[in-house]
Order: sequence, then C-alpha cells, then structure tokens
Amino acid sequence: MTRSDSGTQRPGSTRRQFLLGGAVAGVAAAAAVGIDHALGSAATPSPPKAGEPVIHGGETVAFHGKHQAGIATDAQAHGTFVALDLRPETDRDGLRRMMRILTDDAARLTAGESALADSEPEMATTPARLTITFGFGPGLISRAGGSGVSQLPAFTIDRLQPEFSEGDLLLQIAGDDPTTVAHAARMLLKDTRSFATVRWTQQGFRRAYGTEAPGTTMRNLFGQVDGTANPRPGTVDFDEVVWRTDGWLAGGTTMVIRRIQMDLEGWDRVDRVGRDQSVGRKLSNGAPLTGVNEHDEPDFAAKNAIGFSVIPEFSHMRRSRSDNPRERIFRRAYNYDVPPAAGEISNSGLIFAAFQADVEAQYVPLQRRLDELDLLNEWTVPIGSAVFAIPPGCQPGGYIGETLLG
Amino acid sequence: MTRSDSGTQRPGSTRRQFLLGGAVAGVAAAAAVGIDHALGSAATPSPPKAGEPVIHGGETVAFHGKHQAGIATDAQAHGTFVALDLRPETDRDGLRRMMRILTDDAARLTAGESALADSEPEMATTPARLTITFGFGPGLISRAGGSGVSQLPAFTIDRLQPEFSEGDLLLQIAGDDPTTVAHAARMLLKDTRSFATVRWTQQGFRRAYGTEAPGTTMRNLFGQVDGTANPRPGTVDFDEVVWRTDGWLAGGTTMVIRRIQMDLEGWDRVDRVGRDQSVGRKLSNGAPLTGVNEHDEPDFAAKNAIGFSVIPEFSHMRRSRSDNPRERIFRRAYNYDVPPAAGEISNSGLIFAAFQADVEAQYVPLQRRLDELDLLNEWTVPIGSAVFAIPPGCQPGGYIGETLLG
Repeated sequence: MTRSDSGTQRPGSTRRQFLLGGAVAGVAAAAAVGIDHALGSAATPSPPKAGEPVIHGGETVAFHGKHQAGIATDAQAHGTFVALDLRPETDRDGLRRMMRILTDDAARLTAGESALADSEPEMATTPARLTITFGFGPGLISRAGGSGVSQLPAFTIDRLQPEFSEGDLLLQIAGDDPTTVAHAARMLLKDTRSFATVRWTQQGFRRAYGTEAPGTTMRNLFGQVDGTANPRPGTVDFDEVVWRTDGWLAGGTTMVIRRIQMDLEGWDRVDRVGRDQSVGRKLSNGAPLTGVNEHDEPDFAAKNAIGFSVIPEFSHMRRSRSDNPRERIFRRAYNYDVPPAAGEISNSGLIFAAFQADVEAQYVPLQRRLDELDLLNEWTVPIGSAVFAIPPGCQPGGYIGETLLG
Repeated sequence: MTRSDSGTQRPGSTRRQFLLGGAVAGVAAAAAVGIDHALGSAATPSPPKAGEPVIHGGETVAFHGKHQAGIATDAQAHGTFVALDLRPETDRDGLRRMMRILTDDAARLTAGESALADSEPEMATTPARLTITFGFGPGLISRAGGSGVSQLPAFTIDRLQPEFSEGDLLLQIAGDDPTTVAHAARMLLKDTRSFATVRWTQQGFRRAYGTEAPGTTMRNLFGQVDGTANPRPGTVDFDEVVWRTDGWLAGGTTMVIRRIQMDLEGWDRVDRVGRDQSVGRKLSNGAPLTGVNEHDEPDFAAKNAIGFSVIPEFSHMRRSRSDNPRERIFRRAYNYDVPPAAGEISNSGLIFAAFQADVEAQYVPLQRRLDELDLLNEWTVPIGSAVFAIPPGCQPGGYIGETLLG
C-alpha cells in the first residue's frame, strides 16, 4: 500500500506543510538559478573498472536471440514472477505497444543500462545476470486473435487459490542480486501500468551465486536434491524437450508455474528412511536408492531382500518417470519462504516452474501420474497454477511477441 | 498455513490411503530388515574440498566472543528478523532453558553444522557468513526480573501496525545465502516452539555478496546511498557509539527496528534536483551537496548565490546531524520488497535497524528531530517499531542472556 492510499491524516501536518512550503520553494529557486549539484553527475555511471574487486555484479546475459533468455540460462539466485491481467481496453494494438515498451526496457535493464523512464539510473548498473522473460496467458493470446495454450486440467490434489493462479501476461525477472531484481520489477510494472494490473507476484530464491560449486543441483526446502534428471541446456535433448518448432511459438516454449506449499512441519515428523523412500533418492546426495552418486541411472527393477522394489513404486522419482520419452519437462524452480500466518512457524514451498514444448503432451501426463500416486503428495499441496506461452526471442529492433502481434 | 490446518479433504483419498498403507508398510519393513540405502550416507557431509570452485559458501563468522555477531559484522545480503511473544507459562527458568537451546543451535548453524534436531543436515553446510543475533524486548526482560529498554515514545509521523511492532524476543538471522537463512530461521523457531509464538517476521535484502566492491555503501530502494556517515566497525568511534559498558548489558547494545514504508510511486514524481535536496546528498554517488565524493565532510554553512543553504535545512542529512556528538547511531538496514496489494505496483521500504549503547540518549533525540522536520517524511511512513536489548556475546559453554538470566 502506498502512502496516498493509507487514508490517514497526520497530526501536526499543518505546521510541517508550512515549513515544507518554504522548503519546496527553496528547491524550485535553487533549480531555477542553476544551483544544482546533481545534474552534472547524474549521467549514466561508468561500469566497474578493471582491477576493482567486483566479482559478478557486472555479468550480463544477452537479451536478444532466437530464444528468450531466462530458460536455458543457469538459474540465478533470485526469481520474481509477476502475472498481470489486461485492462479491458487493451486491444491488439495496445498489446503491441506494451510489448515494444517492455522489450525495450528489458533489453536495457538486462544490459545494465537504466530503463527509459528510470529516475534512479544507478540502480541498474549491477545487472548480475539479470534476465527478463515474458509469457502470454490464454487470455492475452485470445485477445490477440491467436491460440496456443490453455490452463491445466483439474487435478485432485489441487487446492488452487486465485491469488496465485492464471493471468494474462507473465514477467519472469531473475538475477543474482535481489536489489536489481526488485528494481527491474518496478521499472517493468511502470511500463505495464496503462495496459494491465498486477494479478499475483511470487518471489523465490535458490542458493546465492558463488556459494556452491557450479552445476550443483539445487535443494528445495525439504532438503531434497531437486532437478537431477533435468535435461541439460546446450544439448539436443534439451532443445527437443523445450523448444517449439511450429507456428508463432517456433523458437519459444510453454511454461507451467505451480505454487507448491510444502508442509515442513509434517515432513519433520518423517524419519530419514521414510524421506528417502518417498523421493526414491537419498537426501544426502540425491543418488537414486539403487546408486551411489547423484547422476547414477536408477535401476527400477532392483528388489530388496524381501521382494520390495528398492526404488518404491510410490516414490516421487518412480512416478515422475514415464516409459514414453516424450513425457519429459525442464524444471527451473525457486524456493519460497514467506512470513507465516499467526501461530504458524513456516509458510514455505516451491515455485515450480517447468518449460516444455507442449504442455498437453509432456507436462499433463506426468502430472496425472503424480496426481494419482506420489507419496510426496502427503506433504505438498499445489495452491497456485498458471500456464503461459513463452514467445521466441527477438533481434535488436524487434520485440517479444512480434510473431503473434506483428 | 500448513496442510494440516487447511481443513480440506481431498477427493480420492480413500484409494490413495489404501495404496499408501501398503507403501508405508513397505518402508517400515525395509527399515526393519536393514535395506536402507540412506543411513549409511546420512552422516554430516564433508566441507568443500580445496580446489573446488566454491567462492564463499563456506565462510563463517565466529559466534562466540565478547559481543554478539551480526552487529559489527559486514552486513550480509539477506536479513530475516523474527519477533516472538513469550507464552504465558514461560518463566525465568523457561527463559534460561530456551536461551541455552537457542545458543547451542545458533553456534552450530553459524559454524556450518546442523542444529541438534535437524533432520536435513545437508541444509546447514553452506553457512555463507550466517550470523544469529538475539534481542530481548521489555516484556522478556521484565519477566526475568530485570530492566533495560522500553519501546520508543510516540512520533507524529508513525502509523504503526501491531503486526510489525514490539515483541519479547528477537532473532536477527543474517547471511549471504537465502536458503541458509530460511533453514536457520526454521531450526531456531522449532527451538522456541514450546516457549514462544511468532509475532512478526520481516525479510530484507541488500546487494548480493560479490556484486559490488567491498565497502560500497548500500543503496535503498529510493536509490539513495544510505549509511555513509555510519561509524566504522573496528574503530574506537564505533565502540563508543554501539557497546554498552554497564550492568547486565555490558558488552551488549540496544537495537531499534523500524519498518519504513517508502512511497516509490510518489518519489517517482520528484525530479532529480528535488530528490538531491531532500536528502542533502547527490543520488549519483552519495556526496554531500557541498562536496564531490561520498565521504567528503558536508559544509552546512555554505550558501548558494541567492542565499539559501546549499545543504537545505529541511534535508534528511541536515536534520539527522546533531551538534551533540553523543546523538549518533550505527545503522544496519535491509531493503524490503514484498508482493503489493491488489491494484498497487509496489510494497517496498526499509527495515531500518539501528544499534546504539543507549536508545534514550542517542536514538530518541535524533528521531525527534526527524519527526519534527525532514523532507523525506513526505515519501516515507514508519509502519513498525520495536526496541530490543542485545545481550553481550558468550563464550563456549555459556549462553546468550546469561548476564540477565544466570
């Protein structure tokens, strides 16, 4: 809530307003006669100099290209996901204007330059691998006269809350610096103001940049190594799982975002053996229960001495795995941990984000299996769900969404 | 909200419970006959090996010492502040037990070791300069039969909300890795469960570790360089401003935490000149309006061509400065940026945290001046306020609070 909406009046404001009246006049006068110590030094700040002990604040990820950034990009430490609802009057022309403005500012911000209307240009000079990825929900696409994605079917495990579900336009703003991510989100939301309103915002995190060896698979807040079986960016496999090759989405993909509430208190009451069996992997290092190292191939046929599968049939890993190689996705999740409600001691979970060329053919059958049976469902509840088409990237001079709106 | 409190039943649970009944039996059986791939590898993980490209995840800040850590410590990227209310039955003996348990786990976690009852020990192995600092509110101190601090007097600018104000026990959990901070908070709150309930939680951030040159003063979300005049840890000046020398708080200090809502939308409508004049410093680099570099000494007597003070009388810097050298504080603030309410585009501000030996003698007169006049008040509203005594540090075998509770 901003101050102007607080609906409160301050005692003593008359005296202060009197004092401030003079003060503001002083400012105006100072500006009028050119006594201005600010403007001379308000130009775009210079980038860090060589030899300064700056480690990674200046690192950038290219905005332009065949695909949007923020998908194949090694996941940054912080991710903010904002879904917006279009205003009723935003038509196809309005969508095009909005996406041109957003594209322009996203290209600037991710390069460590200030947004066009940024009055704090210093806030933009630490990109820290900032990426900005745009997604179009079913409502936006249909308003543009196209088609592409629909929301997911209902799953029995779902307890969806509208405040974390659906939306017309998605901004995924990710970077290694939380201040940069916050500033970028604000700049982009200023751009959207006349076209759309915020529907929901979800803020997540992974390990901070440089705290672990590169390539370490993240742990979620259950302590699970989460994402071992992910396709690896830069491989043919990844390209086949993720990128669309047909229609206006060619070079793009689709994205499923689900907010998965994790019952950390209930999980605490499960012993180590039960946890490993629920996942099908060892919590210690993420190795399958039939293996030693994280990336060992699981042996689903292996039985223990009394005839049970070593990797239980009900385990999350077993239930996630299909015999159909098409039923795979690329996960790029973030943990969330927000202040708990009164009397609770945690409100935590996972902002599950998955990219796949085709939601219906890849994601849905996988999620149907997990909906039917997955021991992890005992401690997790999906409370938000949204699907977005992720348009392809663009070249300088172009804009994200031009294959739909152009 | 945890799942057990959702009050909802899932369709299809009968079938799943049937399947899970068998599954859980399988787990028990597997455990009983020792088919357990987990326990063998669930020992405390080894620290990062030399030569691995781990940059800073293993860095620790000593927990034990004359003073608590997390005050003179270079501010980490993430700070979570949790205030708790004591349960009615928590007496002086209970306080002592609680602080022994908390101290023990804080010493472990900050050393990169798992908490005593931690069933995810892997989550603790990336301390990333984790510090845990305890504070005692007036209610706790009085229940212990002592005295020390009181809440602040009312200020006319305050619009305090109980959900961000007061509290008996404070946990300041700060570190460079957000996952570590979240895990540590959960471990500590498990410790407090039978003694206290959570009153409020505030989560904040600064620049990520390694994004800027060491020693760079932080910027708040107005883009202001914030904290230039801070006493520098390791100096006599800092020691005099911060550490208490008398009574049970000797070696400790006091802490004021105020949640300052910042009207980013209103601030956006102020031009660059007006902003610089409001602060008294250039936004570009934090230099006083009479200087060139951030740490130049301001010249409050300097006038411009038409006779106005170059550093305006109403500016935040001028109003913060007292002729009495005792009226100084040490700030260690964090930005906050949380999902905005419907229709808003930002909910942001500053978790203002100040340490000083004596709240009444140092903080209160300064805040009274700012309450009376400070142009920044036009765009900022204090919505939370709390005061805590910060006990001295302890040695191994001791516990935080022993000078009050021992």
